[in-house]
Amino acid sequence: MENFDDIELKEALNQGHVSEIARWLEGKAPHDIAEEFTRLDAVNSALVWRVLRRDRALAVFEELDSTQKQELLAGMRDQAFRETLESMDPDDRARMLGEAPAIFVHRVLQGLSPKERAMTASLLGYPEGSVGRVMSPEVVTVPENTPVGEILDVVRRKGHDAETIDILAVVDGARKMVGLLGLSQVVMASNDLTAGDIADREAPSIAVTDEAERAARLVQETNRLGLLVLDSEERVLGVLTVDDALEVIEEADTEDVARQAATLPSSGHYLSASPVRLAGLRVVWLLILIVASTLTVSVLQIFEGSLEAVTALALFIPLLVGTGGNVGAQAATSAVRALAVGEVRPSDALRVSWRESRVGVLLGVVLGSLAFGAGSLVAGWGVGATVGISVVLVCIWAATVGAVMPLMAKALNIDPAVISAPLVTTLVDATGLVIYFLVAGAVLGL
Amino acid sequence: MENFDDIELKEALNQGHVSEIARWLEGKAPHDIAEEFTRLDAVNSALVWRVLRRDRALAVFEELDSTQKQELLAGMRDQAFRETLESMDPDDRARMLGEAPAIFVHRVLQGLSPKERAMTASLLGYPEGSVGRVMSPEVVTVPENTPVGEILDVVRRKGHDAETIDILAVVDGARKMVGLLGLSQVVMASNDLTAGDIADREAPSIAVTDEAERAARLVQETNRLGLLVLDSEERVLGVLTVDDALEVIEEADTEDVARQAATLPSSGHYLSASPVRLAGLRVVWLLILIVASTLTVSVLQIFEGSLEAVTALALFIPLLVGTGGNVGAQAATSAVRALAVGEVRPSDALRVSWRESRVGVLLGVVLGSLAFGAGSLVAGWGVGATVGISVVLVCIWAATVGAVMPLMAKALNIDPAVISAPLVTTLVDATGLVIYFLVAGAVLGL
Repeated sequence: MENFDDIELKEALNQGHVSEIARWLEGKAPHDIAEEFTRLDAVNSALVWRVLRRDRALAVFEELDSTQKQELLAGMRDQAFRETLESMDPDDRARMLGEAPAIFVHRVLQGLSPKERAMTASLLGYPEGSVGRVMSPEVVTVPENTPVGEILDVVRRKGHDAETIDILAVVDGARKMVGLLGLSQVVMASNDLTAGDIADREAPSIAVTDEAERAARLVQETNRLGLLVLDSEERVLGVLTVDDALEVIEEADTEDVARQAATLPSSGHYLSASPVRLAGLRVVWLLILIVASTLTVSVLQIFEGSLEAVTALALFIPLLVGTGGNVGAQAATSAVRALAVGEVRPSDALRVSWRESRVGVLLGVVLGSLAFGAGSLVAGWGVGATVGISVVLVCIWAATVGAVMPLMAKALNIDPAVISAPLVTTLVDATGLVIYFLVAGAVLGL
Repeated sequence: MENFDDIELKEALNQGHVSEIARWLEGKAPHDIAEEFTRLDAVNSALVWRVLRRDRALAVFEELDSTQKQELLAGMRDQAFRETLESMDPDDRARMLGEAPAIFVHRVLQGLSPKERAMTASLLGYPEGSVGRVMSPEVVTVPENTPVGEILDVVRRKGHDAETIDILAVVDGARKMVGLLGLSQVVMASNDLTAGDIADREAPSIAVTDEAERAARLVQETNRLGLLVLDSEERVLGVLTVDDALEVIEEADTEDVARQAATLPSSGHYLSASPVRLAGLRVVWLLILIVASTLTVSVLQIFEGSLEAVTALALFIPLLVGTGGNVGAQAATSAVRALAVGEVRPSDALRVSWRESRVGVLLGVVLGSLAFGAGSLVAGWGVGATVGISVVLVCIWAATVGAVMPLMAKALNIDPAVISAPLVTTLVDATGLVIYFLVAGAVLGL
């Protein structure tokens, strides 16, 4: 028999009203909520349960019998649950995606394929690109007081379901991380110690909502076989293994390479992507760049008089903008890389520009002499001097701008790799032309 | 007391005459050669010993007592030995760098720092960039008939000197590879099996003279903790661990990124490299590119008459060459990446160019319409049509050339990454201008 409360809850569920569900839950004991779950289907159980704050959610979860637990887990993985979430308004959805208890996360993600896992992880509130989307929940945990001699038994017992046993998580009674333990350390350790004694307490770990790429680079830098993934209370949720880290890095690098060439990364096989798809990936940036390069048209329009007077000036436009673009692209690439590996920070902008301007002077002197020679040969001393001096100035300008732009992007929280070589080139082109015609005006008296 | 033979040998050694040393060795029994080593210093022992072919070298090595063995190893690592090798003529040096016996390689490399190891590996004849230069010789070998229950004892006994015990090499009596064995497999395996039973016989391995980068990518692709490195007889020489593989990949990627921006990779910290050094790394490519771009000057010179007649044509030169360059750079980057991950081969050149030309048509239609609009607005229909049509043709040309050039480079055994975006850009610039002025001639009747 249904009472008034039940009707209220069913209606709130039907309409997806999170605040109503919350009101219904208010003041109810965990036991009563668990009791109510027997009357709800899997998806509705999951909905109600996700409205609970973590501490209460854990209490309710522990009140459930094993069949109910299975049902709740199934509900969390259900397509209908995802669809309900997606149809909610953002505030409600954010509330539904609060942090879930570690023990539950572990169970809901277990046994899923990487793809299913990534989808389910989104329902746990781990944002796109976070390590929570790529971690494996199947890590062997070893209580810290386990004697070394018994650790291998623990591993043999729990290892069959694990993603890896090359690294183990040593935890305290509350599943909080004590340290990371390599299987090789266990094999080599002396028998009178415990897991807690030999665990590597200095091993880096990462929060589940942190960026997957940051986690992967951490694995790479620290030369370890993986990294433990923790919730906000330092409880172990999973592991990012070195091979998963490698995949994350590979993907990020492909993305960066694509960005440097001003195209969106293609996920598919090159030969199986249709020309329409390839063109679609590339056209976005090309449109931005062609619009930006109308700036060069305007600059040249301003100086059309000079061009008419000395047509020979036009001959060196591609050489000048090309050189400026190349110098700028080199500086930008160096800066992007230096930022990526942490050698410079946005606050180094002044030092970087001072350094690059000197590099620009050196390059300018070498390339400018060559340009002066070519210019004089083709169009006389005056044009030669104009081209030579312009190349020197453009080199200094391009090197400085090219290096500083990625730093500025970083300071504005934009991925510096977006400041691709083509973007730098296009922007340096227009300013380079202004320099060229100003120099021409001074040298040739136009 | 020295006999005639000794004098002959000393002289041959003093003059570094490999063929004389070889003649002296001819017909001598291993025992006699070993005996002779007592009279030679470490470096000369190493010199004589390296002239021997592998089988005899092994026989001699086994005749030596442990002090002599130590001396020979020391000689191989000696600066003087390296210098003697370097002063030899290339034929003699090649002969001295023949394959050394596996057991000797193992011992000579053991205990050295990675840097010392790389230097010594060069003396073993492993070419620059080969996996022999970066592998670790400190791998635990497990005889194939070892029962599972005893493997961990072997690991505990040999593991202290090893680079890694996460993976083990299962070998037969002649140190030949039977398979790779993960420590985790050992822990999980049933006790009634042997190392040979559980070893992964399908695990990839690599020859010591193969490219380090190829080896590293193999580790990455196969998601393993390392790779066994073998000599030409499949004997285990060492291991490339996943963290060393990561470093090799990181370095190769840094190199590729630098190449894409037409600069040489810098090994040092960005802020500590002097401007002179930075300029030095960048200037080589810039010089090549500026010389290549004088081609654009020549093209424009040919069409100077058209430029004088319609100065407005000059206004769109940067836009045209910029767009061609960007389209070419995108296509080149896609092709370089597709080659790197094995999605295309040089023999796919026709398919690739057919695909890219269609991509070029699509991009050309979109960008050409925009260029037509801008051109008409600024300089009338005639110039607008010229710019629009030229952009379409340049897009098709740039996409095709950009994608095919890396494939051609690969076919000619040149690293495709050398076909950097700036190189494609510069080459497309000149041809793009030819297209532009031919179209102008046709449309405007110049």
